[in-house]
Amino acid sequence: MKKLINSPERVIADALRGVEAADERVRVDHTNRVILRADPKAQGKVALVSGGGSGHEPLHGGYVGHGMLDAACVGEVFTSPTPDQILAATTEVDRGAGVLHIVKNYTGDVMNFEMGAELATDLGVDVRTVVIADDVAVEDSTYTAGRRGVAGTVVVEKVVGAAAEEGMGLGEAAALAQRVADSTRSMGMALTSCTVPAAGRPTFDLPEDEMEIGIGIHGEPGRHREPLTDAADVARQLVEPILADLDFADADTILLVNGMGATPLIELHILFGEVMALLEAAGVRVARRLVGNYATSLDMAGASVTLARADAEILRLFDAPVNTAGLRWGA
Amino acid sequence: MKKLINSPERVIADALRGVEAADERVRVDHTNRVILRADPKAQGKVALVSGGGSGHEPLHGGYVGHGMLDAACVGEVFTSPTPDQILAATTEVDRGAGVLHIVKNYTGDVMNFEMGAELATDLGVDVRTVVIADDVAVEDSTYTAGRRGVAGTVVVEKVVGAAAEEGMGLGEAAALAQRVADSTRSMGMALTSCTVPAAGRPTFDLPEDEMEIGIGIHGEPGRHREPLTDAADVARQLVEPILADLDFADADTILLVNGMGATPLIELHILFGEVMALLEAAGVRVARRLVGNYATSLDMAGASVTLARADAEILRLFDAPVNTAGLRWGA
Repeated sequence: MKKLINSPERVIADALRGVEAADERVRVDHTNRVILRADPKAQGKVALVSGGGSGHEPLHGGYVGHGMLDAACVGEVFTSPTPDQILAATTEVDRGAGVLHIVKNYTGDVMNFEMGAELATDLGVDVRTVVIADDVAVEDSTYTAGRRGVAGTVVVEKVVGAAAEEGMGLGEAAALAQRVADSTRSMGMALTSCTVPAAGRPTFDLPEDEMEIGIGIHGEPGRHREPLTDAADVARQLVEPILADLDFADADTILLVNGMGATPLIELHILFGEVMALLEAAGVRVARRLVGNYATSLDMAGASVTLARADAEILRLFDAPVNTAGLRWGA
Repeated sequence: MKKLINSPERVIADALRGVEAADERVRVDHTNRVILRADPKAQGKVALVSGGGSGHEPLHGGYVGHGMLDAACVGEVFTSPTPDQILAATTEVDRGAGVLHIVKNYTGDVMNFEMGAELATDLGVDVRTVVIADDVAVEDSTYTAGRRGVAGTVVVEKVVGAAAEEGMGLGEAAALAQRVADSTRSMGMALTSCTVPAAGRPTFDLPEDEMEIGIGIHGEPGRHREPLTDAADVARQLVEPILADLDFADADTILLVNGMGATPLIELHILFGEVMALLEAAGVRVARRLVGNYATSLDMAGASVTLARADAEILRLFDAPVNTAGLRWGA
């Protein structure tokens, strides 16, 4: 295992120290392992809390800041944060207007966020939850009942973060989050496995001449393996299941071509070009575009495509100023 | 070789198609392989042109936009752009106030930019050149007489891009670029080789238990190889040669911890934390921080540290609004 770490046991503590040193927008609660906005709390603003296992950076800690999340709960690598972490984050960021939990659909995450929400509710915090399940690859998976939550989470956090910044109430924000989640589909693939530091060896074996289509962001099995083809074919295998799953024909869309962590930007651009050509041929209007590493899987080489239907309100909120390490514009 | 490409021959053409589709800030001259700003030209503004071999993205095409470059010449992977490309970019962006060439110190780049500048001069364009040689690792290398130009180039392009946007004249901008270049030092390391698509196999062999200190961004040999250690030791081996080479004690600095392309952000954060601890212990004031993939080496796993002395003018220009795919703030 070749990694720039001090020891597998210290990965999260050391990374949080680095985040704190690198990003002036956030402060870190090292005891509870929560990344919080550094700017003063606005009373009456709905607070957004997300989180999950580490290894998907910049998801979620890199999206804490103005116009996006108020806090991110940082689990061990590929391990759900605990209810206590979620409780600490929720009570810390509540400004009296309630807290929205944005949870990727993995059994442990869902369960622990549910327990954290119950504990916070007992303390008088109004909590709503939206579960993101944008991955069309498989219906159930290693850690999931139903579909997995993957890079589409970034779109939800951006749009609802902007709405909360504008003063949207908790019920409305939860409904908006659900609406964006329901409008978003993703599909990923891997050229290589990732290696969890504590395991010390690749999560799975993928022969030198094969790729896996429909991979999960923890290396969970996808739809199938096949001989490595080219970027045009990979694009087709990611785009077709997305378009088959939801009607994107009569709406503007937000497109995210996402790297899994070890994929060079030059390859993401090649894939992006192929994806755009397919979407144009299918009559899909791409109104906003992102390409880069937004929701990763440690050192996995591979990519995913996320497409979100976006009405005028969603586009406006997507365009609103955001100031985070992972997404920044207008600020 | 596992890459998201269509064929080694089509890598640059396909990537440029993707850049054009992904980035509304730029337009692409596919004939000359130049990435240009899409926004209207401002008469009287000094234009900045950079470029080099591909494989270092977002360097340089990702830095074309308001507040940074006017054009980037896109060579084949790890291959200098031709004089004709440089001529085309230079004449295209000249607004009558002259053009500054920002060139990383590699023999081919320096020679071709010199020829491109001569051709442009013959056509009446006023051209100045600054050569970036920030890498303290080695004095001469595979493709270099003198020191190599690496990630410090990003700092030069940012600061001088802001100055040009404000209306600084060509002579002053060239002098500022030289001053920033002279104030900037970098040092990198690799955990793995990169693989050039046309070669189809890793540029060099690095055993599973070894790392290379002082690596170049094309996989050129560094200072030495040694058994893989930990992030704290790597940080020390990158920071110490930088601090030994230039006095950073009595100035504010800009710190960039840069990923080589296949290094996950969580590892860059761990390294960032270690680098900051060393700089604090050495009494170096870090005024601005960047962490991420800013100047890469295809799919190399590894990282570099760049430190730039920054007076009040340099800090102000660094903070000025920038709107590019690779760096964006205040816009």
